[in-house]
Amino acid sequence: MSVRPIGIALNGVTGRMGYRQHLVRSLLAIRDEGGVRLPNGDTLLPELVLVGRDPAKLKDIADRHDLPRWSTDVDGVLADPGVQVYFDAQVTSARVASVHRAIAAGKHVYAEKPIAPDVAAALELAGAAEAAGIRHGVVADKLYLPGIKKLRRLLDGGFFGRVLSVRGEFGYWVFEGDWQPAQRPSWNYRAQDGGGIVLDMFCHWSYLLEGLFGPITAVTARAVTHVPQRWDEQGQAYEATADDAAYAIFELGEGVIAQVNSSWCTRVRRDELVEFQVDGVQGSAVAGLRECVAQHRAHTPKPVWNPDLPVEVDFRSQWHPVPDNASHDNGFKEQWTEFLRHLADPEPAQAYPHNFHTAARGVQLAELGLRSSAQGRRLSVPELT
Amino acid sequence: MSVRPIGIALNGVTGRMGYRQHLVRSLLAIRDEGGVRLPNGDTLLPELVLVGRDPAKLKDIADRHDLPRWSTDVDGVLADPGVQVYFDAQVTSARVASVHRAIAAGKHVYAEKPIAPDVAAALELAGAAEAAGIRHGVVADKLYLPGIKKLRRLLDGGFFGRVLSVRGEFGYWVFEGDWQPAQRPSWNYRAQDGGGIVLDMFCHWSYLLEGLFGPITAVTARAVTHVPQRWDEQGQAYEATADDAAYAIFELGEGVIAQVNSSWCTRVRRDELVEFQVDGVQGSAVAGLRECVAQHRAHTPKPVWNPDLPVEVDFRSQWHPVPDNASHDNGFKEQWTEFLRHLADPEPAQAYPHNFHTAARGVQLAELGLRSSAQGRRLSVPELT
Amino acid sequence: MSVRPIGIALNGVTGRMGYRQHLVRSLLAIRDEGGVRLPNGDTLLPELVLVGRDPAKLKDIADRHDLPRWSTDVDGVLADPGVQVYFDAQVTSARVASVHRAIAAGKHVYAEKPIAPDVAAALELAGAAEAAGIRHGVVADKLYLPGIKKLRRLLDGGFFGRVLSVRGEFGYWVFEGDWQPAQRPSWNYRAQDGGGIVLDMFCHWSYLLEGLFGPITAVTARAVTHVPQRWDEQGQAYEATADDAAYAIFELGEGVIAQVNSSWCTRVRRDELVEFQVDGVQGSAVAGLRECVAQHRAHTPKPVWNPDLPVEVDFRSQWHPVPDNASHDNGFKEQWTEFLRHLADPEPAQAYPHNFHTAARGVQLAELGLRSSAQGRRLSVPELT
Amino acid sequence: MSVRPIGIALNGVTGRMGYRQHLVRSLLAIRDEGGVRLPNGDTLLPELVLVGRDPAKLKDIADRHDLPRWSTDVDGVLADPGVQVYFDAQVTSARVASVHRAIAAGKHVYAEKPIAPDVAAALELAGAAEAAGIRHGVVADKLYLPGIKKLRRLLDGGFFGRVLSVRGEFGYWVFEGDWQPAQRPSWNYRAQDGGGIVLDMFCHWSYLLEGLFGPITAVTARAVTHVPQRWDEQGQAYEATADDAAYAIFELGEGVIAQVNSSWCTRVRRDELVEFQVDGVQGSAVAGLRECVAQHRAHTPKPVWNPDLPVEVDFRSQWHPVPDNASHDNGFKEQWTEFLRHLADPEPAQAYPHNFHTAARGVQLAELGLRSSAQGRRLSVPELT
Repeated sequence: MSVRPIGIALNGVTGRMGYRQHLVRSLLAIRDEGGVRLPNGDTLLPELVLVGRDPAKLKDIADRHDLPRWSTDVDGVLADPGVQVYFDAQVTSARVASVHRAIAAGKHVYAEKPIAPDVAAALELAGAAEAAGIRHGVVADKLYLPGIKKLRRLLDGGFFGRVLSVRGEFGYWVFEGDWQPAQRPSWNYRAQDGGGIVLDMFCHWSYLLEGLFGPITAVTARAVTHVPQRWDEQGQAYEATADDAAYAIFELGEGVIAQVNSSWCTRVRRDELVEFQVDGVQGSAVAGLRECVAQHRAHTPKPVWNPDLPVEVDFRSQWHPVPDNASHDNGFKEQWTEFLRHLADPEPAQAYPHNFHTAARGVQLAELGLRSSAQGRRLSVPELT
Repeated sequence: MSVRPIGIALNGVTGRMGYRQHLVRSLLAIRDEGGVRLPNGDTLLPELVLVGRDPAKLKDIADRHDLPRWSTDVDGVLADPGVQVYFDAQVTSARVASVHRAIAAGKHVYAEKPIAPDVAAALELAGAAEAAGIRHGVVADKLYLPGIKKLRRLLDGGFFGRVLSVRGEFGYWVFEGDWQPAQRPSWNYRAQDGGGIVLDMFCHWSYLLEGLFGPITAVTARAVTHVPQRWDEQGQAYEATADDAAYAIFELGEGVIAQVNSSWCTRVRRDELVEFQVDGVQGSAVAGLRECVAQHRAHTPKPVWNPDLPVEVDFRSQWHPVPDNASHDNGFKEQWTEFLRHLADPEPAQAYPHNFHTAARGVQLAELGLRSSAQGRRLSVPELT
Repeated sequence: MSVRPIGIALNGVTGRMGYRQHLVRSLLAIRDEGGVRLPNGDTLLPELVLVGRDPAKLKDIADRHDLPRWSTDVDGVLADPGVQVYFDAQVTSARVASVHRAIAAGKHVYAEKPIAPDVAAALELAGAAEAAGIRHGVVADKLYLPGIKKLRRLLDGGFFGRVLSVRGEFGYWVFEGDWQPAQRPSWNYRAQDGGGIVLDMFCHWSYLLEGLFGPITAVTARAVTHVPQRWDEQGQAYEATADDAAYAIFELGEGVIAQVNSSWCTRVRRDELVEFQVDGVQGSAVAGLRECVAQHRAHTPKPVWNPDLPVEVDFRSQWHPVPDNASHDNGFKEQWTEFLRHLADPEPAQAYPHNFHTAARGVQLAELGLRSSAQGRRLSVPELT
Repeated sequence: MSVRPIGIALNGVTGRMGYRQHLVRSLLAIRDEGGVRLPNGDTLLPELVLVGRDPAKLKDIADRHDLPRWSTDVDGVLADPGVQVYFDAQVTSARVASVHRAIAAGKHVYAEKPIAPDVAAALELAGAAEAAGIRHGVVADKLYLPGIKKLRRLLDGGFFGRVLSVRGEFGYWVFEGDWQPAQRPSWNYRAQDGGGIVLDMFCHWSYLLEGLFGPITAVTARAVTHVPQRWDEQGQAYEATADDAAYAIFELGEGVIAQVNSSWCTRVRRDELVEFQVDGVQGSAVAGLRECVAQHRAHTPKPVWNPDLPVEVDFRSQWHPVPDNASHDNGFKEQWTEFLRHLADPEPAQAYPHNFHTAARGVQLAELGLRSSAQGRRLSVPELT
C-alpha cells in the first residue's frame, strides 16, 4: 500500500476555469484527501508544476496554495522525467502547438475542450498521440454532473426499454449589454473571434449524446443570429456576427431522434438551464444538471386531446425524482480521478473513453452543424479515421 | 330589431367532434341564447337540418334535442332554398365530393379541417367556391382558445417587441393498444388510411403560426415512426406505417424561427398538452390551451451558466399569469358566431379570414413537411395561387 | 498600472452618519479593497486625515482604525498640498463657512446635504466653487439604493412607456418623547433650530425626482404641525414649532404629477418606510429602499368597481419582483467611488451630476414648498442661475 | 303590531344600478323578509309602483318579479294618495325636473346622487323640499360599507384619540379601449358629456369625510387628464377631455388634513380598490370597502430610518383586523331601511342626515375642486345656506 507520486504539469490554470475547477476543486482537493486510491490499494499522489507565461500570476497562485514549483519554461518542464502528465487549459488557439510538444516529449496528455479549432487539426493530434503511444483524455464534465449520471443509471438499468427520442433545451437570456451589462464575454458573439453557440455547445452535445446513446449519424441544424447588435465590456455597440441560437435535429442509431435547441436569446421556463427529456417504450425521464425525474410506463397517464376543457391534471406531478443514492463530487474532480486511475493501470482493458478521438467528433459535429445550416440539408456524420 | 332565421344543413354531426363541439356546444348553445346578435340590432337564429347516412343515429340526435328536421337525402336538403349554409364534419375522405355538391347548389360552406387530402384538391375547392360566389370558412378552433387569445393579446399590445423565436411542444403518449387500449383510432397510424401526425397537426400549426406571426416561408421537418407495431380497436396487431412524431423547424418572415415538435410517443412534462413559447426582445410568454404566462424584460433574471453549483433559483416562479380580463366562451362557438355574423353582412370589408385558401395553406404545409423529411432538405413554402 | 494616493480631509466624522456611512462603510472599505480602480488600470488609494474640534474623539477613531493622521487644525490641514479633497459632514449650520475655506484653499469638495440653509447661500457656494475651478459633489445617497436603482433601470429600459404619475409615501411614527423616548433629535421639531420635515426631506425629493424624471416645474404643498407638544432628550416638554408632515403635489414636465406625502405622524402600512409608485402607460412599479415590484400592462387586471361584492382578487400578488441582476454595494460607498473616479478624470465629459447646483435645487424646493403652504398657492419652480 | 303599507314610486329602475341595487337587493329583499320592523313593533311593507318611459322594459321587470303595478304616466302615479314616496334613479340630467314634480305633489323623496348638476340647482331642490315640508334623502351607500362601518365604530369608540390626518387612495387602471375594451363607459372621459373623476368621486368623498370627521373647510386639488385619447364602445378613437385623475388635499376642522387621490390611470397595489388610512394620536386604522385593520399606540413599532439596512420588519403584519362583530347586509338595503324608519317616525329627533343639503355639499366640493385646480389656489369651502 505504497504512495506513488505522479508529476503533472498544468498549463493555463491562471484562467478562471483552469484555476477554479481543475486546480483548486480537482487536483488540490485530491491532494487534500491524500491522493487517488488505486484498485491494488496503492495511492497516487499528484505532484503539481504550474507552467505559463506570466511569472507574477504563477508565483501568486503558487504562494497562495503552497505549491513548491512553477515555471515559464514549458519545454524545460516537459524535459523533466519526473513529470508524466501534461494538462492544457489555455485558450483554444494556443492549445494545438503546446499539446504537440507534450506528445513529442512523451507525456500523457489531458486537455480542455475543444482540443483544436477544426477537425483536421484534431485528428492530427489524435494521430500523433497514437503514434507516440501516450494516453490522452479530454474534459467531458457534463457527463459527470449528478443529473446526467442519474440519467445514465436509468439507461444502464434498462429503464427506458428501447429509446425513441431525446429532446434537449439549453439556454437563457444573455443581456445585450446596453441596458444591463451582458453576463458573457463579447467575443462569444463575434464569428471573427471564434464565437458562436454552435462552436461552443455542439462539442458538449457530441460527447453527451454519443456517451449516453451511441454514435450520431446525421445532423440537421439551423443556426441564426437573433440579436444582431450588442454592447461590449466597454459599453461600445458592436455587430454580433456569430450565431446566438441553433435548432438542431441529430439522428442517432436505430431511428432515435435527438432534437436539441441551444439559445442565448430565450427566457427560462424550466427547472434548470439545460434539460434533456428521453422517451422510451418503457418509460421517460427528464434530466438537468442536478436533478432527474422519471415516469415509467406503469405511471403513464392517458390524456385525451380535448382543447375544450380546462386542464385538471397536474402533469408535472406525475414524474418522480430519481434518488441520488450516492454522493456527487465535483464533476471535474471525478473525471480527474478516473483519468489518473486509467494512467496508473499498466494494461487497461480499453482506451480512455473521452479521448482525442471523441474530442475530434465534437469539433466535427460543430463544423457539420454550421454547414447544414448554410446549405439547408441534412448531413450525415461519418466515422472519423 | 327583427329576428332572421338562417337554415344550416349539418353533415357529420353523428361523429364525436361534430356532435359535441359543433352541434351541442356551438349551434344549440347559440339557439338557447336566442341567436346571434348582429351589429344592426337584428338577431340571426340558426334553423338546423341534420343530414347523413344513418337514419337511426340522425333520428336519435334529433329527438334528444327537439330538432324538427333530419334527412338522409343530402341533395334534397341542398335543393331547399331555406337552407343557406352547408356544414361538413365528415371523415376527410368524404369531404371533397360533398362540399363540391354544396357549392354547386349555391350554399355557403363551413367545414372541418383538413378540407382536402392534398393541395390540388384543396385549391380546386377554393376555385369552385370563388367561381360560385359563395362564402366559405374552415374550422380554426385553436386560435379561439383562451391561452392562444391571451398570447395574441400580448402580440397586439406589443409586449414582445421584435419577436425572435417560437418553440412549440405538442404531444402525449398514445398507448400501443396491447397492454392498455389506445386512446386514438388505429387509422391515425396507417399511412394508407390517411393517418400520420404531420397530416393531422401541420394544418393547425399553419393557421396558428400564420394567424399569429405571419407567413411561413420555409420548412425543415423530420417525420419518423417511433413505434412500428400497434394494436387496433379489435386487439389485432397491425403495422404502423404512418409517422407518429415530427420534428420541424419553420421559418417565418424576418428571421423568426418556429421550432415545433409533435409526437404521440412522448410523456408530458408540461402544464398543458400543447405549449408555445414565444421569445421577443422585450419579453417572452408561454401559452397553452387555457393559460398563458409571461416574463417581461424588466423581470428577466440574469442566470450564469455554472454547472458546478446547484440551482437555487426557481425559474418557473419568475413567470407571471396573463389575466383573463374577459370571459372565454367555447372556441368552436366563438368561431361559429363570427362566421354567422360574416354571412349576415351584405358587404363585408374583407373575406372571412379562415377560408378555403388558408385551409389549402395547411394542407400545403403538411405536404411540404413530409417531402422535406423524405429529401433531407429545407423547402421554401411558396404562396398559393 | 500604478497606485496613486489621494489625500482626503474628513470633517464631521465624529457624528453617527459621518462615522458609520462615510468613514467606515465607504472610505475604509474602499481602502480594504485596495482602492478605487480607474478606467486606465491605475488605482486611486484614499489617504485619510480626520479633522474636527474634539481631539479625544478624533484620536479614538484614528486609533480604532489605524489611521496615522488627525488634527484639530483645519486650516493647517487645508494648507497641505497632499490633501486634495475636503469632505464635510458637520451640522448644517457649520457647513457653509467651512466649505468656503476649503474652496479658498483650492480643494475639491464633497459634502453632506443640505449644503446651506437657504438658496442664496447655496448659490454663493456654487459660484465660489466655479470661480475657483474646483470640483464639487453632494451626497445623493437615495439614488444609489437598490430599490431606486432597479426603478431607474426600469425607466432606462423603457418599461413604463410614457410616465403618467408618481406617488410617494414617506414616514413613520416618531414618538412624542413622554411615554416612550423619541427616536429622532428634538431640534428636528423646532423651527428656530432648523427643524421641519420640509427642510429635511424636500432636498431628497428634489434630486430623486429630478434625477429620475426630469425637472420639477411647480410645487403645491401643505405643511402642518400635527403634534404641537413633544418631550426632548432630557424629558422636558417643549413646543414643536416646525412642520411634522407635508402633503405635496409636484409637477414635472409633460404633465407628470408626483404626489408625495412626508410625515413623522403616521403609522406604516407598507413594505418599506418610503415607497414610490410610478404609473405609466405600459406598466407600473412600486420601489422602496431595497425592493422594487412591477406590473406590466400585459399583466394588468381589469377590476370592476363593485362595492357590493367582497374583494376576491389579491391585488398585491399581481405585482412581480424586479430581480437584482447585480450585487448592490453600500450606496454611500458607491457614490464615493463614483466621485473619486470623477476627480481622477483629467477631462471629464461632463460636470459631476450631484453637485452644488443640484444641491441648491433641493434647498430651493424646500423654500418654495414652505411658501406654497403659507400662501395657499401653486408655485412654479424656476431654473436657478 | 300591525302591518302598514307604504307606497313607493320607483323611477329609473330599468338601469343597472336602479334595478339591481335598489329594486332587487333592497326593496324586494325587504318585502321578502316581510317588511321593515319599526321601533313600536309595527311593520312597514313597501308597495312598489314602477314608473318610467319604456313600457316594454317596465312590463318585463314587473312580470319577472310579480309586481302588480307599473306605469308610464308619472304624473298620474304622483297624483295617487296611496303613493307616499318618490324614488329617482334616472340619469342625472333628468333628475331635477322629476324631483321638483314629486315635491310639488307632496311626496317624500329619496334620490340617487348627484341630485343636480350644479350647486344652485341642488340648493333650489333643498329649498323647495323644505318649503313643502316633505322629507328627503340621498343615497350615501359608501357609509354603509362594512369597512367604513368598522372605521366609524373605531371613531365612535375613541380609538384614535385626536385624529391627525386621513389619506385616501382610490383608483385602478381603466383600459384605453383599443387593445382591450374599456371597463367604464366612454362618456366618463368626455367633459362635454358630464364626465370626469372629480364630478364622479368628490360627491362620495364629501359625505364620507363629513359624515366621519366633520365639515371640510378648504380644498386644494389638481385635476389632470393623464390619458388624452381613448376608444369608445364602437372601437372609435375619441379625445378624452375630462379629468381622469385628481390629487386633492382637503382640510377638515382642527387641523386635520385629508389627502385623497382618485385615479383611473393607476395600477392597484393595495388590498382593496379604495382605502382610507386614519392616523390619530392613540392609534391608526386602514379601512377599505370590506375590511379594516388597526394599530394602537401600544402596538406601534419604533422604526429607525436607516436606508443602509434591508428591511427586516414586516410592517404590514403589525396591523390587526377589526372584527365584524355583526353581519353586514347590503349597504343600499341598510340605507333604505334606515330612511323608511325615518319616514315612519311622526316626530323624528333630527332631520335625515343624508339629505338634499348634504348632497348639495357634494356637488359644491366637486365644483370647488375643479376651480382650485384651474386657479392653482387653496379654496375655502363655505357653509351652504
